[in-house]
Amino acid sequence: MIRSLLFVHQNCTSNSQFIKQAKKHLKIGLLITFHYHTVLCNCQKANTPSTNSLTSMAENITNSSVFTGKEDRYKGIHVKSKNNICSTSNFVTKLEASLQEWTSQKKSAAWFYISLGQSEWVPLLTKNGFRFHHAARDGSEVAMVRWLAAGESHIPVFSHTMIGVGAVVVNTENKLLVVQERYQNQPYWKLPGGYVEPGEDIPAAAMREVLEETNIKTEFKSMVAFRHSHGGPFGCSDIYFIVELAPLTAEITSCEIEIEDSQWMEMDTYLKHPKVHENNRLFLRKYLFSKENGIVINGTKTNHPITKAPQTLYCLERTYQQLR
Amino acid sequence: MIRSLLFVHQNCTSNSQFIKQAKKHLKIGLLITFHYHTVLCNCQKANTPSTNSLTSMAENITNSSVFTGKEDRYKGIHVKSKNNICSTSNFVTKLEASLQEWTSQKKSAAWFYISLGQSEWVPLLTKNGFRFHHAARDGSEVAMVRWLAAGESHIPVFSHTMIGVGAVVVNTENKLLVVQERYQNQPYWKLPGGYVEPGEDIPAAAMREVLEETNIKTEFKSMVAFRHSHGGPFGCSDIYFIVELAPLTAEITSCEIEIEDSQWMEMDTYLKHPKVHENNRLFLRKYLFSKENGIVINGTKTNHPITKAPQTLYCLERTYQQLR
Repeated sequence: MIRSLLFVHQNCTSNSQFIKQAKKHLKIGLLITFHYHTVLCNCQKANTPSTNSLTSMAENITNSSVFTGKEDRYKGIHVKSKNNICSTSNFVTKLEASLQEWTSQKKSAAWFYISLGQSEWVPLLTKNGFRFHHAARDGSEVAMVRWLAAGESHIPVFSHTMIGVGAVVVNTENKLLVVQERYQNQPYWKLPGGYVEPGEDIPAAAMREVLEETNIKTEFKSMVAFRHSHGGPFGCSDIYFIVELAPLTAEITSCEIEIEDSQWMEMDTYLKHPKVHENNRLFLRKYLFSKENGIVINGTKTNHPITKAPQTLYCLERTYQQLR
Repeated sequence: MIRSLLFVHQNCTSNSQFIKQAKKHLKIGLLITFHYHTVLCNCQKANTPSTNSLTSMAENITNSSVFTGKEDRYKGIHVKSKNNICSTSNFVTKLEASLQEWTSQKKSAAWFYISLGQSEWVPLLTKNGFRFHHAARDGSEVAMVRWLAAGESHIPVFSHTMIGVGAVVVNTENKLLVVQERYQNQPYWKLPGGYVEPGEDIPAAAMREVLEETNIKTEFKSMVAFRHSHGGPFGCSDIYFIVELAPLTAEITSCEIEIEDSQWMEMDTYLKHPKVHENNRLFLRKYLFSKENGIVINGTKTNHPITKAPQTLYCLERTYQQLR
């Protein structure tokens, strides 16, 4: 109990967004909503079965007139369509009975996870006040939710930020690995990089992208800088991390699909090249600044002190002692 | 054309994830898939109407026997249910005609954006090979997609990372602002903080959370460190940024809903306190390291050099000149 709550606490940073609207006006049911979010942060977690409260929780709804769901510690109910066989003709009756029972039991919210093959449930749920929340990453399921407790809904917001990575790779001759992407009207020289994949660490994503685009093997050295912006793909925000990688091989083979050209370029040339974005010039200057000052943003893979789950901490660190 | 492509280029960092599986095996239609992603990054963008290719694009499907959609530059078709009146009984016929026409026109993929009130379309789309992709942030719409081009699907992945923030707030007496959250079994002293809201900058999120939790007004000074971990809420990864804020007021008023207790604590006390997470101790040590070395991770709000869209760049910067 303590351990999982601590992990939740650490992982979620706080519940403040979830209850922010509630702060000005105390309302009935707020204690439930606060607890509800805490547990959501816990029970929706992947890859942490030891702290997943759902897996250790009995399915305590056995009456076949209502849907079988897993109840979280603080009155949220989670129904997987694939665990519930119900014909479309019986669905509304069963849903109404379920909602009535859950409301009388003071459940805070009802979540339905609808598989592709049972998507006839979707219009029946929307007619009963459910809204879309998120899709499973493989596209096989949509999550829908309805707030049941008193007062306004305090459903937590889903992820809204895309994570990308670019790499500063400098060889022993002090030359920078640069690429020109295909299908761009202007032949800009860029840093190799791409999107971080689900569950992937930032250094691993950078090393993978450099290998894919140029066939150069690398190892992670440090975090150089990052950029945060809004209004990206799907209306999401975007964080673009720049990492320093050390090359382990020298011979470039450009990816024939994605890369028009690539080369080891003199850093001075890159810093003055007309076909280089000002952002990338700044990132390279910051890489040089870090070297000159003997301070980097280190990336250290450790385990969370309480839960032991893997984490990477990015912090300032001295690389050599300056004379003072 | 150049400008929007450049923005796409900058914003998406690269198309490599989108076509990564294609790299090993050249297939028919790859050129289309590459272009398709490029345009997706562009046309799905919010808050950038000047570069939104959809808004300037004619709806070029006018035959009422097929769905009216907006076509992107490289053969993706985007259908909004609310722009298409179609009875459920006519839907399948119209969908089949649409798919036939789009396939013959070598469209790369078909996207449907289904409003709550038209969710009868969802099961009909799943029966025709569409999968769930993401939900609108307000829950009013679900995006479904089907790959139409030859070869395997190269639909881009949706956002999978939650962004949180914690604040190091130190007053002129060198005391740290710390909080105990309510409803935690163990009274850990933590940094105030919470989730970054959609479209919100990281410093703004930190200042908002500190104000909400403690009523202390602050201003942003620097980025201290960050933590990346996986397996968070909704199966998402999690990035937790620690920022330094300078207090502009002194008197704490704890948020009565969220905060059990809060205080200005001696930094030495915090660094040795048994009820402090090791991560938070490390973050505080890194804050002190930054002060001692006169180097911070600065956060500078600028505009993108090409598109002029707002961006915040987080980079190393010297705060004072060391004697050497």
